[in-house]
This record gives sequence, structure tokens and C-alpha cells, in this order.
Amino acid sequence: MPVPAANLYPPFNIVRLSHVEYRVTDLAASRAFYVDTLGLQVTDEDDQTIYLRAMEERGHHCIVLVKAGAPSVGVLGFKVFDEGDLDRAAAFFTARGLPVEWVTRPFMGRTLRTRDPWGIPLEFYARMDRLPPIHQKYKLYNGVKPLRIDHFNMFAADVDASVGFYNDIGFRVTEYTEDSETGRLWAAWMHRKGGVHDVAFTNGLGPRLHHTAFWVPTPLNIIDLLDLMSTTGYLANIERGPGRHGISNAFFLYVRDPDGHRIEIYCSDYQTVDPDLEPIRWNLKDPQRQTLWGAPAPRSWFEEGSMFEGAEPVASALQAQPIIAP
Amino acid sequence: MPVPAANLYPPFNIVRLSHVEYRVTDLAASRAFYVDTLGLQVTDEDDQTIYLRAMEERGHHCIVLVKAGAPSVGVLGFKVFDEGDLDRAAAFFTARGLPVEWVTRPFMGRTLRTRDPWGIPLEFYARMDRLPPIHQKYKLYNGVKPLRIDHFNMFAADVDASVGFYNDIGFRVTEYTEDSETGRLWAAWMHRKGGVHDVAFTNGLGPRLHHTAFWVPTPLNIIDLLDLMSTTGYLANIERGPGRHGISNAFFLYVRDPDGHRIEIYCSDYQTVDPDLEPIRWNLKDPQRQTLWGAPAPRSWFEEGSMFEGAEPVASALQAQPIIAP
Amino acid sequence: MPVPAANLYPPFNIVRLSHVEYRVTDLAASRAFYVDTLGLQVTDEDDQTIYLRAMEERGHHCIVLVKAGAPSVGVLGFKVFDEGDLDRAAAFFTARGLPVEWVTRPFMGRTLRTRDPWGIPLEFYARMDRLPPIHQKYKLYNGVKPLRIDHFNMFAADVDASVGFYNDIGFRVTEYTEDSETGRLWAAWMHRKGGVHDVAFTNGLGPRLHHTAFWVPTPLNIIDLLDLMSTTGYLANIERGPGRHGISNAFFLYVRDPDGHRIEIYCSDYQTVDPDLEPIRWNLKDPQRQTLWGAPAPRSWFEEGSMFEGAEPVASALQAQPIIAP
Amino acid sequence: MPVPAANLYPPFNIVRLSHVEYRVTDLAASRAFYVDTLGLQVTDEDDQTIYLRAMEERGHHCIVLVKAGAPSVGVLGFKVFDEGDLDRAAAFFTARGLPVEWVTRPFMGRTLRTRDPWGIPLEFYARMDRLPPIHQKYKLYNGVKPLRIDHFNMFAADVDASVGFYNDIGFRVTEYTEDSETGRLWAAWMHRKGGVHDVAFTNGLGPRLHHTAFWVPTPLNIIDLLDLMSTTGYLANIERGPGRHGISNAFFLYVRDPDGHRIEIYCSDYQTVDPDLEPIRWNLKDPQRQTLWGAPAPRSWFEEGSMFEGAEPVASALQAQPIIAP
Repeated sequence: MPVPAANLYPPFNIVRLSHVEYRVTDLAASRAFYVDTLGLQVTDEDDQTIYLRAMEERGHHCIVLVKAGAPSVGVLGFKVFDEGDLDRAAAFFTARGLPVEWVTRPFMGRTLRTRDPWGIPLEFYARMDRLPPIHQKYKLYNGVKPLRIDHFNMFAADVDASVGFYNDIGFRVTEYTEDSETGRLWAAWMHRKGGVHDVAFTNGLGPRLHHTAFWVPTPLNIIDLLDLMSTTGYLANIERGPGRHGISNAFFLYVRDPDGHRIEIYCSDYQTVDPDLEPIRWNLKDPQRQTLWGAPAPRSWFEEGSMFEGAEPVASALQAQPIIAP
Repeated sequence: MPVPAANLYPPFNIVRLSHVEYRVTDLAASRAFYVDTLGLQVTDEDDQTIYLRAMEERGHHCIVLVKAGAPSVGVLGFKVFDEGDLDRAAAFFTARGLPVEWVTRPFMGRTLRTRDPWGIPLEFYARMDRLPPIHQKYKLYNGVKPLRIDHFNMFAADVDASVGFYNDIGFRVTEYTEDSETGRLWAAWMHRKGGVHDVAFTNGLGPRLHHTAFWVPTPLNIIDLLDLMSTTGYLANIERGPGRHGISNAFFLYVRDPDGHRIEIYCSDYQTVDPDLEPIRWNLKDPQRQTLWGAPAPRSWFEEGSMFEGAEPVASALQAQPIIAP
Repeated sequence: MPVPAANLYPPFNIVRLSHVEYRVTDLAASRAFYVDTLGLQVTDEDDQTIYLRAMEERGHHCIVLVKAGAPSVGVLGFKVFDEGDLDRAAAFFTARGLPVEWVTRPFMGRTLRTRDPWGIPLEFYARMDRLPPIHQKYKLYNGVKPLRIDHFNMFAADVDASVGFYNDIGFRVTEYTEDSETGRLWAAWMHRKGGVHDVAFTNGLGPRLHHTAFWVPTPLNIIDLLDLMSTTGYLANIERGPGRHGISNAFFLYVRDPDGHRIEIYCSDYQTVDPDLEPIRWNLKDPQRQTLWGAPAPRSWFEEGSMFEGAEPVASALQAQPIIAP
Repeated sequence: MPVPAANLYPPFNIVRLSHVEYRVTDLAASRAFYVDTLGLQVTDEDDQTIYLRAMEERGHHCIVLVKAGAPSVGVLGFKVFDEGDLDRAAAFFTARGLPVEWVTRPFMGRTLRTRDPWGIPLEFYARMDRLPPIHQKYKLYNGVKPLRIDHFNMFAADVDASVGFYNDIGFRVTEYTEDSETGRLWAAWMHRKGGVHDVAFTNGLGPRLHHTAFWVPTPLNIIDLLDLMSTTGYLANIERGPGRHGISNAFFLYVRDPDGHRIEIYCSDYQTVDPDLEPIRWNLKDPQRQTLWGAPAPRSWFEEGSMFEGAEPVASALQAQPIIAP
């Protein structure tokens, strides 16, 4: 098996993925997309920055939109269990020779900024401002009715290496795609919070962010979003789906924001809290791993991604994945 | 407007489409598809023929599967209002110089067999055996939970002419696609029973049957069918969808039976009983007419269809439709 | 069988129920209910009157809200096939000794006003102003996403007599409840447009309007409305449901408007266009006829209704229906 | 606040609730209910015992049905993180003066049997036989399509005390009902696995098991089960619902098995992994805590429960809860 054994006693305790900072070129256009179309709720905004949360989240934000000259990803944020975990994380990254910095972030407590070995900017915190529940304020539900941020998916030039590193910090592999000819990992899904993934890695020019996903109640909400987007000027922003992934078993849709950042709308994966959960292996040659129903993904979905601020992507050494022609 | 005015006082009263006879090469394979996978109910069968109905139908059958050496369509059946309508229909077809024959069909009363001007075999009847209701026998619901036959869609080499003929016998256009450059009809949807269509015609090598459609309760039943087919050996039989049509606004899926006959699973179109309902015009250049969400149909969907017994298709004089590359 | 044989050749051709005029005491409160909560679309309004349509309707209105000192129902409206049907209707009602008057109504063509033998105010018309389609303007969908008006349900003091009269004008019984001890009809559902009913009658102090129903896409829209109403101050307006009726097989919810007028939200009944459709008989003693799942209706649902303008209700001669205690 | 602060560093690590042993008087009747109606999958059976799992579970069983002379609950099972946790659990219960025994259970590794201070039989284990995934074998999905066991709900004669004890072993309160007059807890919901609860306690004659809950994909699956049960002889087994709980925000249905054991079908609660998640307080006087939409629960739901083997229930000292009359 090409995936490492689950690291059940990691050096610090990450609770879940938490938030992403998207740098965007037109705040009003992004607001129309994330707030008026997807239905995320504004928790704070000025003329440079918009903070958003989903309907069942009580942490202050899951997306930060920051006005910038060019689109990129400023940071991926993760919540750790307690303040001691922050210190243990700092020690871990320092020991690995990675940059460690304590930074100040609005609405957040003590925050550790670092990068993974490929330059992906990461921030860890234990406490963020908490907001009153809105999950039963049904008048606010809108768009696709997003309930919570679910995961990040990243291109990696060396998936084996990325999986090794994130396994070291406690992410556990739930499913993976293996190139049976080389024995190399093509892709892997890794979790902390008890779903199929908090983070995933796919072979390609990396590091780049492939997408951020939001959990919604049912497939019908995704159909509602398709109807809305296709009749309000967002037809070209619909990239792939709806469909069911073989991997994760989730019902999905991929859309692109006005700057091209990719958002997945996602529901119905499964619970993964058992520490002895066996990872599910998929063969790179099996097209049902991507779409259980057989429909191929478009070329853009395989090739395009968002740049991380300060991280220069490099090509994968693996042979390019054969894109299945529709 | 290239569509004829609604013919509100037709020569005889067709209530609705009723049934189709599919000639199939392997009855057991067809049974596995229509009964065990789609969920239609067997009302009679022997080693040559299987009769099927959907869950809310009380007429004896909506599909007849007949064992044959090669796949084809034996007949399209329609229910008329009363016995007098049968006689008026016979007079109408005779006056048009079309073949008229009174035939005996199991489970059916007096039956008129004829052909439309392009050779499509048609049968009209007023009374078919009635069966006890099963729509509240929920233990029987299975597969996609098909509720009723909804419509036939046919390739026609001259859509203007086909629409003219079917308008003469009372079918009313609800939506249509016009080639704005030539002013010719590309496709049209025509109803009797108060939905978007009982019959539709699309430009192409015709006459051929493009598909027969079944109505299901919600889009989630279509998702269930996709999950079932893609994990029980029917992956290659999934042809197009799921998606929402621009035309008809219906949520759809197209699948192929073991002989290649195409079945549409369909829900959520709209009521059309108003005699002054204005037909909706679509431009041939608008890809959203086919899929509101923008996803293109595969080439097979544009090109393949079932042969009608005894009718030789001819090419359309119109220029081939540009197939939108995915 | 206590129901009359279907009258297949009625004296004039009613296409469908069309609209209701509700007299309401507070237009702003009614607007908040029908527009902001149920999601009906305003097509015209001033300080005395609001006209509403549902999402797939192209006729100008299905509800007229009229400011009044006390709540009542001004009229039930029906669309007939053509202008000749209006004249035939006038002749029919005149021959029955019922009041006939040609009235002028905004947004409508020639309109015949009359009453049924128990005083229910009825209006018939062939043509109403037509509006552009909005069923694919998904940004407008809101509340319960009402698609179209579906039926009226009325209390009648003599259901046998009411069914006889409405059968005379072409309504066909689809289901009915019989008091097996007396052989009398307790309730009946009668259609013109091809669903389970356009009108229904239930034994009780009558005539009164029990409810007007709207068709919605799926049961999930009804759940959405429950969530919305129960968290926006409308908790007390939820009267009964959700549930599935035995009769009609429809999924339902009953809510009350600010004046107590009852609205049913309704989906998933079945097609009834066959002229030989056999009515389904239910026994008055079978509680599943009301709720297939067994939950009883509250007392208010059995007893309360809206008064028709100018019609004095009288008690039924039948013994009061035993209300099933929860 | 009457709930204890979250115990973030408990003496041993419980991963989740795992399984329940129901003693039943007629194995065939129970099989018809749990397998043919609810859709659970048999993983082992003989003439004394049936083992069941839900569709996404890989552990060998979530329910054990054991033939017995009278219905009761044999044990509530919980999975701990590793073998060391089992030893730490043994030490904890021993220190509390509670009975500790190492028992042998089919399909399970080392198993610790004990009781809580009120006599509820508990078993803890780290490893159970693992079975191949079936969550993508869609042909097997049946009934309500149960995905996984979700929680246990118990009557407790002293909810404050029960919450204190289970808090000591790491269960964290997510929502609770307080009697504002006495300041006493009326009920509380406590989790380990990241949903609203693994266990809940409600005031009443206790200890008794109120219900075991299963998670399903969407509310439509619950509607399907209602349709199925009400037409296959299980009408009287439908006890309460469908509805949405105020507490937990979940869509629910309660049904009773042939011996009266109560099963909840449940979906759409929310994620609770944040260690700083604030418990939500409900007032005992607020009827929306039970059903957001206002419908009352039947008396049986408040009063009836399953006896735990070897535990004699005692009355609560709190005043009986006012049952809201429908």
C-alpha cells in the first residue's frame, strides 16, 4: 500500500480546516458571487476586505476576500484544539526548518503563520471570535444554502511527499488513487474532522489550490444553484457537474468565482472518525473514481488552479494524466 | 412565427400518448433493464412478449417488449376519447390517403392501425384493459420509481411538415426551435394531455424514434437511478445528463436499453392546458435550449435513434446541426 | 356506487380553476404572507387590491387580495375553452334559474358572473391578460416556490347534491369518501384539468371555502416553508402537516393567512386525463384516507372555513364526522 | 449556566457510540422490521441472534437482535480510540466503584463491560471486525437507506447527575433544556464524534432507553419510509413525525419496532468538532425546542421507553413535564 499508516498520535492536534483568504480583483463582483449567488453571510466588510461565514458556522469567518491587483490565495487556515497545540505546532515547523511567525489577524487569537515544504502558506489558531448561531434563521438562507466549509484540494508536484508531510501532522488518508504501473500516488484525500477530507492532493503543477469546498444539505440545493447561475449571468462560471464522485461518494458541482478561483459544492460523503478506518484504493485507470456515473471532467478542471501567494509551482515528475475525452 | 396556429377543434380527440412497442433481441436482458433497473411493473408476459406499466397508470401497458431478430419500434400508441373518435380518425387518415386497418391487440378494444405520411406506425384506441391502482403500494416502488409514460420524441427529415401534420390532428405546439437564418423549424414540442409534450420532432435522418420518456417524482429519483446503473453494470448505458432542459424546463436523464433504444427520465415540466398558451421560441444558436446549465450533449444523442418497423428514414434537407463540442 | 357516472359531454367546456378573490382586512399583512413568505409574484397592486400569480402561470392572476372590513371570499374564477363556452355557460345557468350577469373585471375579457345553487359566487371567462413567462427566472423563486394554483376545496351541507351539480357542468369524480352506513357521500374530489381535482366538497356547514391549494415542485419545498414560517413569526399559522393524503396521494401542508383563509401547499398527485378513469372509493371509517401515515388533523381543520360573499351557510343533515383524537 | 464546562481532557478517549443489543421476542418479526422495512444489512445471523450494519458502516454491527422472553436492552456499546483507552476506562470505572468485567463478544476484540452509576449496561472496545465497504453497492439500498447509527437517547431520573457523569468521561454538551424556575436540567445532548450527540438524557422514569437513532441522507428518505410503513402493515408503528427538532435542527421520524423499542430516523444536524462550541440553551417552556414547527408529540413519546437489562428505573424528583395537548 503506497499510503503511510495513519499517524494516530501527531505532534499537535488540528481540529479542522477553517478558512481561506482569496485575493480578488473586484470586491463587488466577488460579493455578488459569494453572497448573492452562493449565499454566504457577511460578518464584516470594508472597502478592502469582506469576511464571510456559512450558515451553521459560529466561527467568525471561513472566507476572507481581500482586494488585490491579481488573484491568488493568501493563506489556508486551520483550527487547533488548544493554545498548547499552537506552541507544539511552532516547535514542529521550526524543527522541520520551515518559517514560523506569530501574526496578528482581525477577529482571531494568537495565530501561527508558516508554510509547508512546498511553500503553501498556512496559519494555525486555537480561538477565533465566536458569533451567535444563525442556522435556524431560515429567512437568511439563500443561494445554495452553504452550511460549512468542508475541504481544500491542492495540486501537488509530488503527491507521495505531500501525503507524507500532512500525515506527519495528523491528517489520515481515507481514499487514494494509485498509478498501478509506477506504484506512485496520483491523489489522496486526508481528514482531521471526521469526513472524507479536510485536505486533498492531486498530481499536477504544484503547489496550487485546486478548490475550496462547501457542504450543503442535499443535491437539490445544488440543482437550485445551477438553475440560478445559469439564468443570472453565471453560465460560464459553471465548470463541472452535477455528478457523484466515485472517490468520497459525494454529490458535487464545481463553479468558478469571478477571478477563476474554483469552489466545489459538496454533500453526502461519509463519517470517518474510526481510527482503524481502512483507506479505499482507486486505480488511476478507473474513470469512475472521478465521476461514478462516467461523465468526464473538462480539461480546465485538470489544468487550472489558483496560485498561492509566495509559492512558485513546479511541474510534476509523473507523466501527465490522460484526460478522458467526453 | 413559423409554427402553425393551435388547431383547437381537431377532427378527432386524442387524449394522450399511450404506449410503445419495442422489438428487442433478448427479452431477459430487456426485462432486467426495464423491470429490475427502471422499476416498471410487469402486467403480462410469456416467452415472446412482456407488457409493462408505470406506477400510477391503470391502463394495461405503456411498453410492450416483443422478442425480435433486430431492434426496432413496432408502433406508437395513442388513446382517443371515445369510440366515435376512432371512426373519425379512420375517416381522417383515409381522406389523407394513408393506410387504415382495424387490428386486434391483446388487452385492448377496437384498435385502428395507420401510419403518418412519413411511415411512422400509429395505433389509436379508446379502451384498454384497466388494472387496479398500485400507486399506493409503496413496497412495489423500485428503480427510478417511474410514474407514467410522458412523451415520444422523433427525428423528422422535415420538421415543418411533421408539425403541420400533427397540428392537423390536434397536437398543440408549446415550445420550438427555429433556425433564424432560414426561418425553418428545427424542432418542436406538441401536447394533447396538458404537459409540455406528448410528441416532439427534431431535425435529422427521419423518421426514427429518438426516445420515449417517463415521468418520475423528483430529481432525486434520477440521481438514485444513476447511482444504481453505474454500480450494476449499466455504466455504458448512461448517455446524457442529469441536467435541466432549457426547452420544457424539465430535469432529465437519457439512458439506453440493451438494444440501444433511448429512454428519457423526466420530471418537473409545466402545465399547458390553456388553449391560448403562447408557444415559447428558442433560437437554434442558443445552447441553453438543450441544457439550461450549458453542458453539451454527446454526439450519439444527436445522431442515433430507433428505426420504425416498415419506415425507411431519409436525410433532412437542412444543414447538419452544429454539435457543440464539450 | 354513490357517485354519478362521468359526464363526458358537458354543456360547456371548463378548462381549469383559475383564481380566487380573498377579501382581507390588512393588505400589508396579507402581502407579507403571500408574497414574502409563500413566494407569489405581484402582477399589479394599489392601496385597495393586489394581484398575484405563481411561477409557471402566464395568466395575469390566480389570487386577488381586496381590502375589506371583514374577511370573506369574493369569487371563485374558472377559465373556459372559448367565447362560445361562455355563452353556453350563461344559457346553462339561466336554465337552472341561477343569477347570470356579465361583469367587467380588470385584466380580463368578457366575464360571466353567477352562483351555484348554494350561493357560491362563480365567474367564468375565456381570456385573461397573458404575461411573459417567468418560470426560468430563478432569481425570483422564493418562499415555497409556488408553481400554479391547483384546486379549491369547499364545505357543502349536501355533498351528494353538490357533486351532482358540478358533475352536470363537467367535473369528473376521481376519488370520494362514502359513509358506508348511509350510502351518502361524505366528500368528493372532481377535476377538469387532468389532476386529482379542480374542486372538492366536504361535508359540513356550507357553503364555505375550506382552502385554496398551490402546487409546488417537491416535498422539500414544503419543508423549507415550515422552517421559514416557524422562525419568522408564522408559527401559529401552521395548521396541519406535513403529511401525505391517502386521497389524492399528495404530499401536503395547510397554513392559514393573516385573516384565517386556509392555503394548502400540495405536490405529487397523479394524472387523470383518461375519460374512463375509475373513481377511487374510501370508507369514512378509514383514517388513512385523510393522512396515509395516520396522524390526525386538528379540530380547526374540520370546523373552520372562509365565508363566501353573499352566501349563508347551513348545517349538514349528516351526523357530525367523528374527529379522530390524536 | 447549569451545564458543566466541557471536559476537554477526559480520562479515556471514546470515539463514538457504536452499537446496541436489543432483546426481542420474535426474531422473524424483528428481521422484517429492521431488514425489510428499515433497510439495515444482515452481517451474521442464526436462530438466536441477528447482527446488522448500516450502509456506510464498516464495523461488523450497530444492532444486535437477541431472542428473549421479554423485550429489553442488553447493552449500549462504545468504541474507544485504542487499547490503552480500554485500560484507562477500566481504571476509571473501578475508581468510581462501578462493576468492571472483561467479556468476550463475537466479532469483537477485548471488551470491557461495566455500568454507569444508574445501572445502564455499557461495553467499550477498541477493535471490532471490519467488513468491506458497501456504501457504493446501490443495489443493496432499501427502506429508509440507513447510513449509520447516530445516537442513544435515555430517560434519566436526575439529568444533572447523568450529565455530570458523562461529562466526566468526555461527552460534551451541545444543547440543553433548562427548567428556568428550578435551574435544573431537563434534558441534554452530548457528543463525542462531532455531531449534536452520541448520547442524550431526558427527565423521566430512568434509566430507560428512549430511542436509538439512525442517520439517513435526506428528508425524502424519511417520507419514503412513512409511505412504505403505512402501506405494509406498520401504520401503528409510526409514533411521531415527520418534523424538525428545534434542538439539534434535525429532521426526524420516530417509529417503534415490533417489541416497542423506539427508533429515530434522523438527518441534517450540524458539525460540532470545535472544542469551544457554545452549548445552546432552550427553555422548558418553549415548545419549539421539541418541534420547530409546533406540532406536539404524543403522550407515548413522553412516557414509554425500553428497560435496560439489570437496571431498575426510579421516578424523577422533578415535576412531571407538562405534555402539550395537540
